[in-house]
Amino acid sequence: MPEHIQTAEADLAHRYLTIREATGALVAPLSPEDCTPQSMSDASPVKWHLAHTSWFFETFVLEPRGGDFRPFNPRFRVLFNSYYNAVGDQFFRPERGLVTRPGLAEVMAYREHVDAAMLRVLEAGALGAPGRAVVEVGLQHEQQHQELILSDVKHLLARNPGHPAYRDDLEVACEAPIERLSWHSVPGGIHQVGDAGPGFAFDNEGPRHDVLLREAKLGSRLVTNGEFLGFIEDGGYRRPEHWLSDGWAKVNERGWRAPLYWFDEDGERRIQTLGGPRALCSSEPVTHVSAYEADAYARWAGARLPTEHEWEVVAAPLPMKGNFVENARFHPAPASMGEPADGPRQLFGDTWEWTSSAYAPYPGYQAAAGALGEYNGKFMVNQLVLRGGSCATPNAHLRPTYRNFFYPDARWQFSGIRLARDE
Amino acid sequence: MPEHIQTAEADLAHRYLTIREATGALVAPLSPEDCTPQSMSDASPVKWHLAHTSWFFETFVLEPRGGDFRPFNPRFRVLFNSYYNAVGDQFFRPERGLVTRPGLAEVMAYREHVDAAMLRVLEAGALGAPGRAVVEVGLQHEQQHQELILSDVKHLLARNPGHPAYRDDLEVACEAPIERLSWHSVPGGIHQVGDAGPGFAFDNEGPRHDVLLREAKLGSRLVTNGEFLGFIEDGGYRRPEHWLSDGWAKVNERGWRAPLYWFDEDGERRIQTLGGPRALCSSEPVTHVSAYEADAYARWAGARLPTEHEWEVVAAPLPMKGNFVENARFHPAPASMGEPADGPRQLFGDTWEWTSSAYAPYPGYQAAAGALGEYNGKFMVNQLVLRGGSCATPNAHLRPTYRNFFYPDARWQFSGIRLARDE
Amino acid sequence: MPEHIQTAEADLAHRYLTIREATGALVAPLSPEDCTPQSMSDASPVKWHLAHTSWFFETFVLEPRGGDFRPFNPRFRVLFNSYYNAVGDQFFRPERGLVTRPGLAEVMAYREHVDAAMLRVLEAGALGAPGRAVVEVGLQHEQQHQELILSDVKHLLARNPGHPAYRDDLEVACEAPIERLSWHSVPGGIHQVGDAGPGFAFDNEGPRHDVLLREAKLGSRLVTNGEFLGFIEDGGYRRPEHWLSDGWAKVNERGWRAPLYWFDEDGERRIQTLGGPRALCSSEPVTHVSAYEADAYARWAGARLPTEHEWEVVAAPLPMKGNFVENARFHPAPASMGEPADGPRQLFGDTWEWTSSAYAPYPGYQAAAGALGEYNGKFMVNQLVLRGGSCATPNAHLRPTYRNFFYPDARWQFSGIRLARDE
Amino acid sequence: MPEHIQTAEADLAHRYLTIREATGALVAPLSPEDCTPQSMSDASPVKWHLAHTSWFFETFVLEPRGGDFRPFNPRFRVLFNSYYNAVGDQFFRPERGLVTRPGLAEVMAYREHVDAAMLRVLEAGALGAPGRAVVEVGLQHEQQHQELILSDVKHLLARNPGHPAYRDDLEVACEAPIERLSWHSVPGGIHQVGDAGPGFAFDNEGPRHDVLLREAKLGSRLVTNGEFLGFIEDGGYRRPEHWLSDGWAKVNERGWRAPLYWFDEDGERRIQTLGGPRALCSSEPVTHVSAYEADAYARWAGARLPTEHEWEVVAAPLPMKGNFVENARFHPAPASMGEPADGPRQLFGDTWEWTSSAYAPYPGYQAAAGALGEYNGKFMVNQLVLRGGSCATPNAHLRPTYRNFFYPDARWQFSGIRLARDE
Repeated sequence: MPEHIQTAEADLAHRYLTIREATGALVAPLSPEDCTPQSMSDASPVKWHLAHTSWFFETFVLEPRGGDFRPFNPRFRVLFNSYYNAVGDQFFRPERGLVTRPGLAEVMAYREHVDAAMLRVLEAGALGAPGRAVVEVGLQHEQQHQELILSDVKHLLARNPGHPAYRDDLEVACEAPIERLSWHSVPGGIHQVGDAGPGFAFDNEGPRHDVLLREAKLGSRLVTNGEFLGFIEDGGYRRPEHWLSDGWAKVNERGWRAPLYWFDEDGERRIQTLGGPRALCSSEPVTHVSAYEADAYARWAGARLPTEHEWEVVAAPLPMKGNFVENARFHPAPASMGEPADGPRQLFGDTWEWTSSAYAPYPGYQAAAGALGEYNGKFMVNQLVLRGGSCATPNAHLRPTYRNFFYPDARWQFSGIRLARDE
Repeated sequence: MPEHIQTAEADLAHRYLTIREATGALVAPLSPEDCTPQSMSDASPVKWHLAHTSWFFETFVLEPRGGDFRPFNPRFRVLFNSYYNAVGDQFFRPERGLVTRPGLAEVMAYREHVDAAMLRVLEAGALGAPGRAVVEVGLQHEQQHQELILSDVKHLLARNPGHPAYRDDLEVACEAPIERLSWHSVPGGIHQVGDAGPGFAFDNEGPRHDVLLREAKLGSRLVTNGEFLGFIEDGGYRRPEHWLSDGWAKVNERGWRAPLYWFDEDGERRIQTLGGPRALCSSEPVTHVSAYEADAYARWAGARLPTEHEWEVVAAPLPMKGNFVENARFHPAPASMGEPADGPRQLFGDTWEWTSSAYAPYPGYQAAAGALGEYNGKFMVNQLVLRGGSCATPNAHLRPTYRNFFYPDARWQFSGIRLARDE
Repeated sequence: MPEHIQTAEADLAHRYLTIREATGALVAPLSPEDCTPQSMSDASPVKWHLAHTSWFFETFVLEPRGGDFRPFNPRFRVLFNSYYNAVGDQFFRPERGLVTRPGLAEVMAYREHVDAAMLRVLEAGALGAPGRAVVEVGLQHEQQHQELILSDVKHLLARNPGHPAYRDDLEVACEAPIERLSWHSVPGGIHQVGDAGPGFAFDNEGPRHDVLLREAKLGSRLVTNGEFLGFIEDGGYRRPEHWLSDGWAKVNERGWRAPLYWFDEDGERRIQTLGGPRALCSSEPVTHVSAYEADAYARWAGARLPTEHEWEVVAAPLPMKGNFVENARFHPAPASMGEPADGPRQLFGDTWEWTSSAYAPYPGYQAAAGALGEYNGKFMVNQLVLRGGSCATPNAHLRPTYRNFFYPDARWQFSGIRLARDE
Repeated sequence: MPEHIQTAEADLAHRYLTIREATGALVAPLSPEDCTPQSMSDASPVKWHLAHTSWFFETFVLEPRGGDFRPFNPRFRVLFNSYYNAVGDQFFRPERGLVTRPGLAEVMAYREHVDAAMLRVLEAGALGAPGRAVVEVGLQHEQQHQELILSDVKHLLARNPGHPAYRDDLEVACEAPIERLSWHSVPGGIHQVGDAGPGFAFDNEGPRHDVLLREAKLGSRLVTNGEFLGFIEDGGYRRPEHWLSDGWAKVNERGWRAPLYWFDEDGERRIQTLGGPRALCSSEPVTHVSAYEADAYARWAGARLPTEHEWEVVAAPLPMKGNFVENARFHPAPASMGEPADGPRQLFGDTWEWTSSAYAPYPGYQAAAGALGEYNGKFMVNQLVLRGGSCATPNAHLRPTYRNFFYPDARWQFSGIRLARDE
C-alpha cells in the first residue's frame, strides 16, 4: 500500500477515535434517565443519538464490506435508522423515548463494538478512497449529532420544573459594554459561493457557482439580548405589523412572548442555560429564536435578514474561531467593545444565524446515488438556511460554506440574528 | 398508652414495612431507564409511582404533624401530586416522562427518607385512630399503585419492538382442558351490598345498603382466550350489530382487531406478557379488553355483562384466593376442568371483571372533607365498575365489595369478562 | 276491514299530516342558507333534519312494502341515514354541512313525495298493527327532530356575530318574583317505574319494573338564572372542589365561565335566545348547562342531582303542561310566586332536567330485532338521563317515563337543573 | 379636469362594471345553498368572496373618502376582512361557512350598494392617480377572487357524493394525439426579470432586476394526465425515493394515490370537473397536483421543476392566450400534435405551473405602507411560486411576471407541471 494512503487511513483512525471520544465526553454528565426521554417530536433521546451515530458506521461502512461482520443486534437496523428509506423501515419517530431497552450501558457497548470493528477496518488500510469518504461523512455526521445532543438535552432539562443544569461548571461571565452596531459592505456583482474543496464539505454545499449580488450591508455583530428586549418592550410580540403572516399565527398559537428559555422569576428576566438558570445577560447575543422572531426583529429594527450568499461572501475571507467544548461555555460570547473590527465579528461559533434564504439545491446539485443520497437532498423544501455555527457546534464544522437548515418555527437550536440592509 | 393502641401502631409499622418493601421488590427487575418514560397519558413512569406513594405519606401524615418535619424536597409537593387540588398545583400529567431528575436513585432515597420518618412516627405511637386511618389509606393506596406499576410497565415494554420481558422467570404453563361454562343463580329480591366493616374499605364501598335484584344467572367462570378467538373469527370486530355505538367508533378509530397485547407472528397468534411473548393460551381467561369488547362479546354470545350488585351478591359468601406475587404469574390462571364447583370460579385474582354498572355514589355516600375527599368521589361519572381483582392485584385488595373503575375504552388494565344473563 | 282499524289508520293519517306540517312550520322562518350549515359535529343542518325524517318513513315504511314504490333518489339512502348500520353505509357525519345539493327546495319536494306516498298507504288502510307501530315510531322520531331543529338552529345562529333571531315575535316577559325553593318528599320503598302502556313509549322506557328508593327530597322548582349567577359570582367556575374531575377538565379545556349563550355586552349579562339577545332574566330557569355544571351547582348548593327514578316517582301523578310552539316562547317559563303548590312545579316543558342516572337498559330490556333495534339500545353507555322535557319539546313527548339522554358535556340542548337531597 | 384624466376614470368605470359583472356571471349557476359552506379552512364560501371583494372597495376606496359615505352594514368591517390586521379584527376564518346571515340576496344588495357608490365616485372624476391605483388593485383583487370562486366551488361540489356539476354546458372534447415532449433552451447569463410597467402589476412582481441563470432546458408543453398515470402505475405514490421528505409525509398522512379529483368508478379512472365527472383525458395536462407531486413526478422523469426565473425568461417574449370564461372550459386544453412550435406551448392559461422557487421578496422589495402593504409581503415564507395562469384565471392576469404562490401541499388550485432540466 502506498505510504500516503496508509497515512490517510491512520489519520482517519486517529480522527475517528478523537471524535467518538468527544461524543462520549458530552454524555458523561448525564444519567441513564437523562438519556432516555424524547422531549418533543423534533428532538431525540441522547441514547438514540449515541446509537444512531454508531448505526451509521455499521450500516454504511461495516455491513457493505461483508466478510465476518456481524451486526451487534439485527433489530438495531430498524430501531436506529433515522430516515433512510433505502435502508428499510424506521421505528416510529415520536416513540423513540419509549425504548428503554437497550439501556445506556448496552448502547455504550454497541458503540464499543462498532469502534473496535471500525478500527480493525481502518487499521487494515483497505478502505480505499470511496470507503474513506463514507467514514468521513460518518464523522461529520457524528459531529452534527454532538450539537444535537446539546440542544436536545437543553430542551429536555428545561421542561423539568427543577431547572437542573447539564453541567455545573460552565462559565457565566457577562460583560457589560457592547460594541455599537456598525455596517460592513457586501459588494455587488458576481461572486462565487459554495464549496470548492479540497477539505470535506457536505453535498449541499456545492457545486460552487456564480451568484449575482446587489450591494448591501451586513451588521457588524449579532443582535444582543438587550436589543431584543427592546423589541419585546416595544410590544414586538403583540404587534402584527412586524410579522410574517405564518409567524404571527405561531406567536398566537404557541403564546410566544420571548425567546425560548427566557422566563420570569420574582420579576426578574432569567434564562435557562446548560449551566442552569442565570440572569439575562444584555450583552450576549440573543439565541433560541425562530426565523419568524428573527425576521420580525429585523423588520422592527428597519433592517432585514441577510441572504445566505451575502453572508458567505462576507464571511469567506475571515478567520474562524469557535467556542465548542474547549471553553466550556455553550452560550454565545458577549460582544466586547474594543478596537474597530476589520470585518463583522461573531460570524463563527456563537449562534447560528437565520438567513432569508430558502434551503434549496444549488444549480447543478445532484444527490448521491443510494441511501446516502437521502442525507441532505430530500429536505430541500420548507426550511431556511442558517449560517455560521453556534457555541455548541464542533469547531471543525465552522466554515463559510456550511449550510445548516431548520423549519422557520424551530427554536431549540442555538439560533440568533444578524441584520442586513440594502445599500 | 393503652396496650391495644401500642399494638395497633406496632402492627401498622410492620404492615407499613412489608407493603413498602413489596413495592421495592416489584421494581427490582427494572433499570433506571425502564422507570423513566410514560408510555401514554393514562400511564405513569414507575419512578413517578415510587415517588407519588411516598408523597402521599409525606403530605397526608408527616406534614400535618408539623414538628421537626422537613420535606425531602419542597418541589416534590407539586411534582408528585397526582390530582389533589386541595393540596395545590400539580405538574402537567402528560409530561411526567420528561422528568429525569430526580433519577431513580434519588427517588429511592426519597422513599427511605419517608420510611424513616414514618417509622419514627409509628413507633412513637402517637398517631391516634384518625392518624392510623390515614396511614391505612396510604398503604391501600400504595397497593393500588403496585398493580399500576405492573400494568404500566407492561404497556411500556409492549411498545418496545424487541418485546422485552419484565421478568424472565414467570410461570408459563397452559392447561388444555376447560371447564364447560355453566350458570349460577343470582337470587332475586332485596339484598345488602357494600362494606359493613370492620376491616378497611375505601369510602366508595359504602354505605352498605339494600338493593333490589331480579333473578338472573352468572357464568361459572371467566371467558377464555379460546372463546374470544371464536368471536374474532366470526367477524366480531367487523360487525357493528354487536357493538355499543361508542364502542364501534373506538374499534374504527383505533383499528382494534383483537385484545391489547395480542399480535401475529409468522401466522401464529401470540400475546405479549410480563414474561415476554408467548403463544396464546386458549384456556386462559381473556384479558386486556375494553368494556366495549366485553359488552360486544357478551352480546355475540347471547348474554350480557353482570351488574356490580349481581356480582357482589354471588361473590360475597365465596372464599377469596389471589395470584399476586406469591405465584409469580401475573397472568390469569387457566380454568381447569374438574369437579363441578359450588359457586362460580375465578371471582378473585384472575382478571378484573367489567360490569355494566356506571361508577356512581352509593345512596348516602359523602366524600370525606379535605383533600382525601378527592380520592374517589370526584371520579364518579363516565366510568364503569370492575369487580374481583386481577392476577396483578395484591391479595389484600381481593374482597367482594371492592369497586375498581375505569373508562370503558381502557385496555391496559388486567380486565376480562364474565357473562350474565336474565333468568 | 273492521271499522276500528279503518279508524286507526285514518287517525294516523291525520296525525301524520299534523306532525309533518308542524315541522314545516318550524322551518318557515329560515332561509335556504340557514338550513345548510352544520355548526358543530353534534348538530345537523336543518335541511338534513327535514330529509332524514322523510328518509325514515321511506326506509322503514314505504320501501319494505315494495310494490310500485320508487325511492325519490336512491342516493338518499346513504345520504340521510343517520346511524342505522343495518340499513347500510352512512354519509360522513361531520360533513353534512357541505351537502348543498339537494337544496332546500328539493328537500321539500322529497318531503312532499314521501307524504303523498305515505298518505296513499295510510288511506289504503292495509298497514296492519305492526306497520302502524312503525309509522308511530316515525312520528315520534319526527317530533324528536323538531326539538333538534330548534336546538341546532339556536346553536348555529349564536355563532353568527350579528346575533340574529330565529323569530322576531317570541314572547319576552320576565317576571320578577320567584317562589322560594321548598322540598317535596320522595317516599322510600319499592316503586314501579317505566312505561306500562297503553300509549306510545320508546323501547328504552320499559320494561316497567320495581325499584327500591330511599327517602329523599326533590326541589319544588328549577334552579333559576339568578341562583346560578350566585354560583358564578362565588367563583363557581374557578373552584375545583365543586366539580367532578372530568367536569373540571372541560371547564378548563373549553374556557367555560357561564352557561352556553350567556355573554357580556357593555358590562351587562345578556343571553342569546331564539328571539335574539335579551337581558338575563333572573327568575327564569337556567338552561343550556352541561351535567357537569348542574352537578357542580348542586354540590355548591349543598344538594345533589336527583336520580331518574326519584324524578319519575314524584312526577308520575302530576299533570303535564308544556310550552311548545303554542305559546311561541321557546324559553322556560319563569317561576311565579303564588299559592303553595301541591307538588313540584316546572316538571314538564321548561327545561330538560339532568339526573345523576347513567343511561342504561332497564332490567329485561331487549332491543328490537332489525334496524329499528338501533334506535335507542346502542347508545346505552357514557350518557346521562334527562327527564321532563323542555320549552322546545313537543307536548306529546311530555310524559313521566320519557328518558332523554346526552353526554354530560352537552350544553346545546335546553337542559337545566332541579335539586334533590337526602332526607 | 384635464380630458385624459376624465378618460382614465371613465375607462376605469367601464372596467369596474365589466369585472364586477363577470363575478356575478360566475355565480349565476349557483344556489344560495351552494354559496354558503366552507369546504375546508383554505377555501371560503362563495358568498364570502362576493362580500369580501365589495368590502375591499368599501374599505380602501369609499371609506377613506369620507363625505356622506355610510357603510352598508358596520358589522361587515370585521366580518369580511380577510387578513388586514391594520384594518382591525377579523372574523374567525374557519367559521366563515357558519354565517348564514347575511344571505346571498343581502350580499348581492351589498354589492349593488358598493357598485353604486363606486360609480358615483368614478363618474365624479375626483379620485386622482393614487385613488385610481387603489381601484385598480381592487379590480385585480376581484379577478383573483373570480379564480378562487371557481376553485372553491369545485372543491365543495367534489365533497358532495352526488358529484354535481357547477355547469352542465362545459366543453368536454378530449383530443387523442399528443405532441412529443421536446426541450427549449433557457439561455445562460444575466437576464432581467420582474415588472417594468407601464401596465398594472402587483408589488411582488417588482422591482425589475438582474438575475444570473445557467443554461438549461424547459419542456415544450405541460405534463399530461397520461404521463402522470405512467408515474402512478410505476408505483410513484409508493416509492419514497422520488419524494421530498415532507412530501412523502403528506402522501402517507393524507393517503394520496392520485391527483385531487381523480377517482375510480367501476374500474375506470374518472375525474371530477366543474362540468361533473368525466373519463380521464390522457392528452389533457394533469392538474390539481401539489408541488410535492410535481417534484416527485419530475424526479421520476429524470428532470426537475423550473425556477420561476427560468420560466419567466422563456415566457416573456411569447404571446399569451388564455381560456377563461370565453371558451367555457375551465379545464386545461389538450396538447395538440401539430407543427413544431417556436417556443414552449401552454405557458398561459392552462394550469398554474409549480416552480422550485420559494416565494420571497425580489431584491429591494418594499411592501407599501398601510393596510394594502399586507396584500402580498407578509406571505413571503413557506410558499412556492407558480407561474403562467390556469384555465380558471382571468385573461387579464396572464402575464410573464405574475407570481402566484401557495403552500407546497395545496392541491385545490388548478396547478400542473412543466419539466425543466440542466443542460
